[in-house]
Amino acid sequence: MEKGQLLYEGKAKRLYSTAEENILFVEYKDSATAFNGEKKEEIAGKGILNNKITTLIFDKLKSAGIESHFVEQISENEQLVKKVDIIPIELVVRNIAAGSLAKRLGYEEGTTLRRPIVEFYYKNDDLGDPLITTEHIEILNIATPEEVQALYDNGLKVNEVLRPLFQEIGVTLVDFKLEFGRDANGQVLLADEVSPDTCRLWDIETNQKLDKDVFRRDLGNLTDVYKIILARLGGLSK
Amino acid sequence: MEKGQLLYEGKAKRLYSTAEENILFVEYKDSATAFNGEKKEEIAGKGILNNKITTLIFDKLKSAGIESHFVEQISENEQLVKKVDIIPIELVVRNIAAGSLAKRLGYEEGTTLRRPIVEFYYKNDDLGDPLITTEHIEILNIATPEEVQALYDNGLKVNEVLRPLFQEIGVTLVDFKLEFGRDANGQVLLADEVSPDTCRLWDIETNQKLDKDVFRRDLGNLTDVYKIILARLGGLSK
Repeated sequence: MEKGQLLYEGKAKRLYSTAEENILFVEYKDSATAFNGEKKEEIAGKGILNNKITTLIFDKLKSAGIESHFVEQISENEQLVKKVDIIPIELVVRNIAAGSLAKRLGYEEGTTLRRPIVEFYYKNDDLGDPLITTEHIEILNIATPEEVQALYDNGLKVNEVLRPLFQEIGVTLVDFKLEFGRDANGQVLLADEVSPDTCRLWDIETNQKLDKDVFRRDLGNLTDVYKIILARLGGLSK
Repeated sequence: MEKGQLLYEGKAKRLYSTAEENILFVEYKDSATAFNGEKKEEIAGKGILNNKITTLIFDKLKSAGIESHFVEQISENEQLVKKVDIIPIELVVRNIAAGSLAKRLGYEEGTTLRRPIVEFYYKNDDLGDPLITTEHIEILNIATPEEVQALYDNGLKVNEVLRPLFQEIGVTLVDFKLEFGRDANGQVLLADEVSPDTCRLWDIETNQKLDKDVFRRDLGNLTDVYKIILARLGGLSK
């Protein structure tokens, strides 16, 4: 499948059309960004790592019955996906307090929550991706109540698959962000990526951060820790 | 009823014990504060105005079947209330976009919402009273799901009474904050105050702000506009 026209360039990926109307070509970039784009760096090899990790995770989710936009990996840093209209809601599922939740509620980072929770953020760079409630979603009219319920249910289902999967490879799934889109039939599909860019992943033994917080907080070399995740997921040979 | 021991001093009120165990003595202060206490001023007469306005509004709510902690006004700036344990949740009901909602969702101030919405904020000065979701409330364990439902229902009910009440006196009820507490029997009761300190009130004709935004945004003399609200509510003679 040939790359067509550049349709969209985000912070971490470029989307291109293909000869098939409902299939897009995704190129993972080497850019790392944080704090709504205020911190930015090029990190050689990052795109390859995230493409491979996302491929592995979308495959695992599919085996567990969770469909996504993912079609197939086609090169080291490229994959094909189904075309969807992204719903401008970032869903965050949290098992352990970290980042903005720890700040918001006054929790010490690392506190295990009484149960996994789901948060919605308004995907809007100009507004700094603010936390929103289901009633905000309703007045913004960016998703129907049924879609919000589907997002919520899918968020918890993905957590039920990924949490034990990471545990088996010695990694605590602290929290993660998901995006969803509507396909040509209006069906809600998991989209975007699932990678150390979008998850907080801590080594179970040492609590070493194996995710983008390494970049956000200047804790070392990002690709070193992303390689640990890829290796433990069994993907180094791919 | 005599003032007993000072039990609590907040930004706008002092609470004293009385001879009766379940009754407290409230003294309205002349302090105005905003931005989590960063802006502060003494404004002579403010306490009297808020005491009188809150008295009138709690009376109107009672006539409409909504109980509160309010017992009776006993002087110009003092009232008696039932003792409650305040639930650390600030409930905000909004009819029109203003303040933090306008910023959060990118609305122009004055935009009428598709329907009234209810927001929960964690009453915690150290954390800056952040917006929270019902799931945050659950993991914080600061109110039961039944209490959250009662708060929500009461918030909308208060809106249904106050919105037409203000409309009749030429005032748009933009939004307002409520606090609730548990009485000796664990019953959830509306508490705190309902005044131009806790409501956004705009003149229907001119959109003149008749509330604490006059202080927050340096728009003029606060007591002048609070007096307009008191007068229109029919309370100047009291």
